[in-house]
Amino acid sequence: MRGEGSRDPRSEPLRFEATTEWLRAEGEAADVVLSSRVRLARNLATSPFGLKATRADRLSTLDVCRSRLLQSGIAPRVVWLDVHERNATERNLLVERHLISKPFSRGRSVGGAPAGNDPRGLAFSIPDERLAVMVNEEDHLRIQVVHSGLALEAAWSQADAVDDLLEAGLPYAFSPRLGYLTACPTNLGTGLRMSVMLHLPALRLTGELEKVKRAASDMALAVRGYYGEGSEAAGDLFQLSNQTTLGKAERTILHELATEIIPRIIAYERHARNELLTKRRIAIEDQSHRALALLTNARLLATDEAMQHLSMVRLGVMLGVLPGLDQNRVNQLLLLVQPAHLQLAVGRELDQEQRRAARAQLTRARLLN
Amino acid sequence: MRGEGSRDPRSEPLRFEATTEWLRAEGEAADVVLSSRVRLARNLATSPFGLKATRADRLSTLDVCRSRLLQSGIAPRVVWLDVHERNATERNLLVERHLISKPFSRGRSVGGAPAGNDPRGLAFSIPDERLAVMVNEEDHLRIQVVHSGLALEAAWSQADAVDDLLEAGLPYAFSPRLGYLTACPTNLGTGLRMSVMLHLPALRLTGELEKVKRAASDMALAVRGYYGEGSEAAGDLFQLSNQTTLGKAERTILHELATEIIPRIIAYERHARNELLTKRRIAIEDQSHRALALLTNARLLATDEAMQHLSMVRLGVMLGVLPGLDQNRVNQLLLLVQPAHLQLAVGRELDQEQRRAARAQLTRARLLN
Repeated sequence: MRGEGSRDPRSEPLRFEATTEWLRAEGEAADVVLSSRVRLARNLATSPFGLKATRADRLSTLDVCRSRLLQSGIAPRVVWLDVHERNATERNLLVERHLISKPFSRGRSVGGAPAGNDPRGLAFSIPDERLAVMVNEEDHLRIQVVHSGLALEAAWSQADAVDDLLEAGLPYAFSPRLGYLTACPTNLGTGLRMSVMLHLPALRLTGELEKVKRAASDMALAVRGYYGEGSEAAGDLFQLSNQTTLGKAERTILHELATEIIPRIIAYERHARNELLTKRRIAIEDQSHRALALLTNARLLATDEAMQHLSMVRLGVMLGVLPGLDQNRVNQLLLLVQPAHLQLAVGRELDQEQRRAARAQLTRARLLN
Repeated sequence: MRGEGSRDPRSEPLRFEATTEWLRAEGEAADVVLSSRVRLARNLATSPFGLKATRADRLSTLDVCRSRLLQSGIAPRVVWLDVHERNATERNLLVERHLISKPFSRGRSVGGAPAGNDPRGLAFSIPDERLAVMVNEEDHLRIQVVHSGLALEAAWSQADAVDDLLEAGLPYAFSPRLGYLTACPTNLGTGLRMSVMLHLPALRLTGELEKVKRAASDMALAVRGYYGEGSEAAGDLFQLSNQTTLGKAERTILHELATEIIPRIIAYERHARNELLTKRRIAIEDQSHRALALLTNARLLATDEAMQHLSMVRLGVMLGVLPGLDQNRVNQLLLLVQPAHLQLAVGRELDQEQRRAARAQLTRARLLN
């Protein structure tokens, strides 16, 4: 169990449900949009932030925020984790569930102390994992809300409500002229980043992905890989997010993304899928069946290869060329093939070679059954 | 039916048994040596040869040789084909069965006449297809004997006997000083080329193939691809042959190859297979199962890809990691996936895309059954 109730959470290993909100792929346009995410960056006016914060500052910030997070009713059930108390595999598990960022998992070296000991914490809602708040990431508070499918409006409403609840008891750093103050100027103003996790296999197959990326970039949108900033696209999954946080109201950002830009990309991907199905059906059948065959017959599988095949299988199921396969099972596997989740499933630490063997066993068992 | 008996062979399409001697892989060391081949180059002293031959010369050569080939009892049953009367698909069929060479299939343009009309013929023994004699290839006569497995001695004996039978009725061009005269000086002397078709997947996988190729080259041996001179290796199949025809007696060439060089390569490949099995078993299982999965699930398959997977499946069957699969079926498929054989099986001409689809269907049907 997790860090709620009377037991000391540090002595308990982390356990999770099989899937996460961001991979559930339910709701609107879930054939293309796996999930929608809203993130708010906030800082306390009473404590230095960014690189100016000492270890003592960070410990104090952690205390103040933890209390507020656990007392303000931000969700019916909230778990708190002292992330610096967790081992590397557990922290990777949180990264793979997109509850924390990779830099946050590593921590920051302050005053010569090892990065791993950097005082930092995570509050998140269970069992839905829709809400996650990191304390002492780049900013004092990083509030994240993830909803399945295309649901930026709903995610925004929840994040806004959580923000209000926290602000009622925390002295946010706010400038009437600049808005919310943040460690990095790119987040200044609203501190808001909205993003959607898109599955774009057909645009990759038809060679139109680069066009989409260029168009997104022209509209001041960032297209990132599976794990966000600086990561590669795996399994044809892409995070599309706004870049501008200053000079635009939250509602304007939301409106542009949710009603203009993203629907256009969805339509474009759907069109490409339809083209594949009508004009290159045998090629799609070929690639879907090959992907499924490799996932159920390989004896060694690397993470990226597994995700790439899962992407093709997901497309094949969606286009009806792989009948009898459950889409949810495929979505779940996108998470379960990740290294930390794999080790959680096996119940022990594995080296890379062992992970590749265990991953192949897992996909075979889950997809053949 | 073929060109024997009373019917006009030109009106009959070519039909063949499923496999050929050179792919049967029976007999000695057939785990590594698919077949052994002996080839003799001979010319008539009474007719110009090489580029000096006119169309009239070539017609006359064809007549003289055809008569002798059909009358001298070189095999219990011999078929004669006027190759210039056959269409491209039929000629490709003969190439794929290694009964004729690629240049012979195309023909040679003489005196402005189209290459396809170049008068040329083929005599071969049925049903075994061990003996094949091309008339008007680079030399007037190219006598070829192929035996399954490592059997250079037997192939040599048969070729030598056929050569004697032909020589008894044909005025061979022979110089007491130089030996048999040939169109190209590299064949001068014995006119003999011996070769073996080797399956060397383990040496490729362990990265030792280049070493073998260099060693072979140091011993004046040529390592060639699947279709001989100038062709790429497909399916890890290599033809190893002697380069020297002058200054060495036939027996010496035979002895060096059959008792020294080839056994060493066989031992080397077997050692590599054993290493794979004991030290990289999971990698071999992985690759064999992947190959079989693709052969039985792909919807489009190119020839080279099919051969590569068949090579891995053959290795997997041999090493016991793919139980329940029949080795002969795999050997047969090495031939049946070739474009002309594929079209013969389907019963009509196919374009490249159709061939890829038909090939995938064929491998699926043959390997799943």
